[in-house]
Amino acid sequence: MHAAHIADASFDPARLAACAEAIAAAGRKLGAQGLTPATSSNFSMRIDDRHVAITISGRDKGALTAADVMVVDMDGRAVGTSARPSAETLLHTQIYREFPDARAVLHTHSRNQTVASRLYASAGVVHLEGYELLKAIAGHTTHETAIDVPVFPNTQEMPELVARVEAWIRAGKPLYGYLIDGHGIYTYGRDMAEAERHIEAFEFLLACELDLKRMRS
Amino acid sequence: MHAAHIADASFDPARLAACAEAIAAAGRKLGAQGLTPATSSNFSMRIDDRHVAITISGRDKGALTAADVMVVDMDGRAVGTSARPSAETLLHTQIYREFPDARAVLHTHSRNQTVASRLYASAGVVHLEGYELLKAIAGHTTHETAIDVPVFPNTQEMPELVARVEAWIRAGKPLYGYLIDGHGIYTYGRDMAEAERHIEAFEFLLACELDLKRMRS
Amino acid sequence: MHAAHIADASFDPARLAACAEAIAAAGRKLGAQGLTPATSSNFSMRIDDRHVAITISGRDKGALTAADVMVVDMDGRAVGTSARPSAETLLHTQIYREFPDARAVLHTHSRNQTVASRLYASAGVVHLEGYELLKAIAGHTTHETAIDVPVFPNTQEMPELVARVEAWIRAGKPLYGYLIDGHGIYTYGRDMAEAERHIEAFEFLLACELDLKRMRS
Amino acid sequence: MHAAHIADASFDPARLAACAEAIAAAGRKLGAQGLTPATSSNFSMRIDDRHVAITISGRDKGALTAADVMVVDMDGRAVGTSARPSAETLLHTQIYREFPDARAVLHTHSRNQTVASRLYASAGVVHLEGYELLKAIAGHTTHETAIDVPVFPNTQEMPELVARVEAWIRAGKPLYGYLIDGHGIYTYGRDMAEAERHIEAFEFLLACELDLKRMRS
Repeated sequence: MHAAHIADASFDPARLAACAEAIAAAGRKLGAQGLTPATSSNFSMRIDDRHVAITISGRDKGALTAADVMVVDMDGRAVGTSARPSAETLLHTQIYREFPDARAVLHTHSRNQTVASRLYASAGVVHLEGYELLKAIAGHTTHETAIDVPVFPNTQEMPELVARVEAWIRAGKPLYGYLIDGHGIYTYGRDMAEAERHIEAFEFLLACELDLKRMRS
Repeated sequence: MHAAHIADASFDPARLAACAEAIAAAGRKLGAQGLTPATSSNFSMRIDDRHVAITISGRDKGALTAADVMVVDMDGRAVGTSARPSAETLLHTQIYREFPDARAVLHTHSRNQTVASRLYASAGVVHLEGYELLKAIAGHTTHETAIDVPVFPNTQEMPELVARVEAWIRAGKPLYGYLIDGHGIYTYGRDMAEAERHIEAFEFLLACELDLKRMRS
Repeated sequence: MHAAHIADASFDPARLAACAEAIAAAGRKLGAQGLTPATSSNFSMRIDDRHVAITISGRDKGALTAADVMVVDMDGRAVGTSARPSAETLLHTQIYREFPDARAVLHTHSRNQTVASRLYASAGVVHLEGYELLKAIAGHTTHETAIDVPVFPNTQEMPELVARVEAWIRAGKPLYGYLIDGHGIYTYGRDMAEAERHIEAFEFLLACELDLKRMRS
Repeated sequence: MHAAHIADASFDPARLAACAEAIAAAGRKLGAQGLTPATSSNFSMRIDDRHVAITISGRDKGALTAADVMVVDMDGRAVGTSARPSAETLLHTQIYREFPDARAVLHTHSRNQTVASRLYASAGVVHLEGYELLKAIAGHTTHETAIDVPVFPNTQEMPELVARVEAWIRAGKPLYGYLIDGHGIYTYGRDMAEAERHIEAFEFLLACELDLKRMRS
C-alpha cells in the first residue's frame, strides 16, 4: 500500500504546472462572475491516469494562484503535500474514473444554481428544453433536444453522493452536469475551455428556467 | 463559378483590418456586459459590396481578437480561409443585402433576450411602447412611437429563418431587430457604434418589458 | 442681445476644465454601473452664475472625456461652440436657477428608474419611507422621514416639462429628484460628490421599492 | 478620566497601518460588489484591547484608502484625531467587547439586505436552513444546521440598538450577524478574511431566501 502510494507520486511536473495555471485562471474568471461566493466551489484537472490537480480547501476562488492547487490520486488522497483537498474531492475523481474523456471538472455555487436546486429537489431533476444554448453542451448540435440535470439530496457523506451519481450513470442516463440540493452544480469537459463553456451554459439555462417559472406562475 | 469566386477575393485588407478590430472591441464590450454566454453570439461588418467580416464559429466572444474574424462573401461562403464562419452567417448577409445602409450586424444571446423570446413566441412579436429609449433606435425622434420586434420560431435550417425574415420585410413592416425563439436578438446599424447602441437599447427595453410584465401580472 | 451673448462668453477656463473632468469621471463611474444605456443620460456642472458645463448630445456616457463637454448659458444656448447640447438642457438650467446651492445635476436612465416611473406614473409620485438610506439625501439626518419623488408625464417639449417641475416647486413641495414617465431620474447636489451620492441613493431606494412591491403583491 | 484617555492613545502604529490597509482593501472589494451604495456601510478592525481602527464617517467605501480610517477607544471616542467616526461606532465596539475573538467587524448595506430586513422585520428574525453555504459561517461543519439572523428595529439612538443586541446575546442565542430594519447587516470574524467570508455568505443566503420567497408565494 505504501509502495503503491509512492508510485502514485510520479507525475509530470510540467503538466501539473499547466493544470494549476488553468485552474487558477478559471477560478478568477468564474469568481468575477459571482459564481464562487464565500470560498465555496472547487475546480480540478486530470494530470494523468492516476493524478488530479485540485484546489486546496477554503481558498478564495476569485483570487486563485497556482499555489492554491494540490495533487490527489484517484482515491482522493493528497500526494506529495500535507495540504487538505476540498471535502468534495471524491466527486471529482469519480468523474475522471467514469468519463475517460473528462480532463477538467468545475463545481460552482451560484445563487441561481442554489435556488434551482432547492426548487427542483423534490422533482429530482431540472428538465431543460427549447433553448438554443443547449447546443453549448458537448454532443448537441440542435436546440431540438432536451437535457435532464439531476438534483441529488445534499449530504456531508461523500460516499453517499458518489453512490447516487453512480446509480444515475448505471441507469444509462446521460450526465452532463448535476445539482446538489441547497448547493451548486458539477460539470466537466474534455478540456478546461469546454468545462467553462458548460458552466456558463448551465448557469444561463438555470437562470432562464427560473425566470420563466416566475413569469408563468 | 470558380472565376467568380476568385473575383470575390479582392477586398481592401486595410478595411478588413479595421472591421476586425471593431468587431473584436464590440465583442469584448458586449461580453463584459454578460450578453454572450458560452461562446454564443456572432458579429459582422460589411467590408464592401461583396464581402463581410464575421466572427469565426465557437470563439469566446468576450475575449475576441482580430484573429477571430474571417471573410465571407454575400452568399456566406468563406473567402481566402479554411476557417468555419458562424452557422448563422446567412442571417448576417441577408441584412446586408436587404438594407444597403447596414454596415454592422450584431447578434447577442442574453438572459433577457432568451426569456422574452420564449414568453412572446406565441404572440410572434414584442410590442415596445412608451419608452424614452425608443429614441435610441435610428429614425425615431420621439418616445411617442412604438416598435414591434418580431419573434421567429427557432430552427437549425438557416434558409427557413431567412425566408421568415424576408416575409416580414416583404410585408412592408419595419425591421430594427428580431428575436428567435429560445435564442437571442439580431440588430444592425449604419456603423458599429449605431449597432452597439441598438443592442444596448433592445436589451434595456426587453428587460424593462419583462419587469413590467412581472409586476403587473 | 448679441452684446449680452458675448458678455456671457466670459467664464473661467480653469473652472470649465475642472467641471469637464468631473463630469467625465462621473459618467464613466455611472456608466460602469449600467445607469446610462445606449447613449442616454446627461450630466452638468455650474461654471458660474451665467454658465453651465454640460454633456454634448449623443455621446457614450460610459466613455466620456472632457472633450464631450460643452458650455451653455442659463437659457440653454451653446456658448463658444457649434456643438449641440442635450435636448434636455433646459431641465438642467432650471435646477441651477431654482436652487442657488446646486452645482451639479445628474440625469441617468436605469432599468429600475424606468420601470418605477411607469409603475408610479398614474400615482404621480413614488413615496419613499422607512429606509436608513434616506439619510444619504442632503438635509436628512434620520431614517424617520419620507421623501416624495414626483413622476412627471414624458414629453419632447421641454417647456412643458419645465412648467411641471416649476409647478411642483411653487406648490412648496421639496424637490430632491424627479422621475419622468418611461424615462430616468434627475437629481442634483452642492458638488459632484453629493450629486453622485443622490443618484446612488435614489437608484438603491427605487430598486428596493420595486422588490418590496413584487414580494408583497 | 483625562489621564485614562491619554493612556488609551498608546497603540502600535504598525498594527494600525496594517488594519487601515486591510479595511481599505475590504471596502474596495465590497464596494465593487455593490454592497456599499451612497457612502453607506462602515468597517473596523481591533488594534488591541483598548483601540479599534474604523472608517471615518461619510467616505465613499468603494474608494477607501488608509487615510479614511481613524482610531477610537472601546467607548467609541476618537483617539488622536479630530475626525468623526461612523455614527454606528458603538455597534462595532460592542462586538469587540462581547466577542474576545472578534478582530474585524463589517457592516454593509445591500439591496438584498435592506429588502430582507423590511420583509422580516415583523417576524424579528430570518431563519436560514438547508443551505450548504451555512458551512461558511465559522463553527458550522455541516449544512444540517440552521442560523437565525435577528432583525432589530431601526433607530438613530445607538444605545437603544446596543441594548437590543445585548439582550439577544444575554438570552444565550448565538449571534453571527444581525440585520437592522430598513438598513443593512453587521457581522464579524476572527480576522478580516473571515469577516469578508461571512459578509459574502450572508449576502448570498439572504438573496437565495428572497428568491425562494418570491417563487414559492
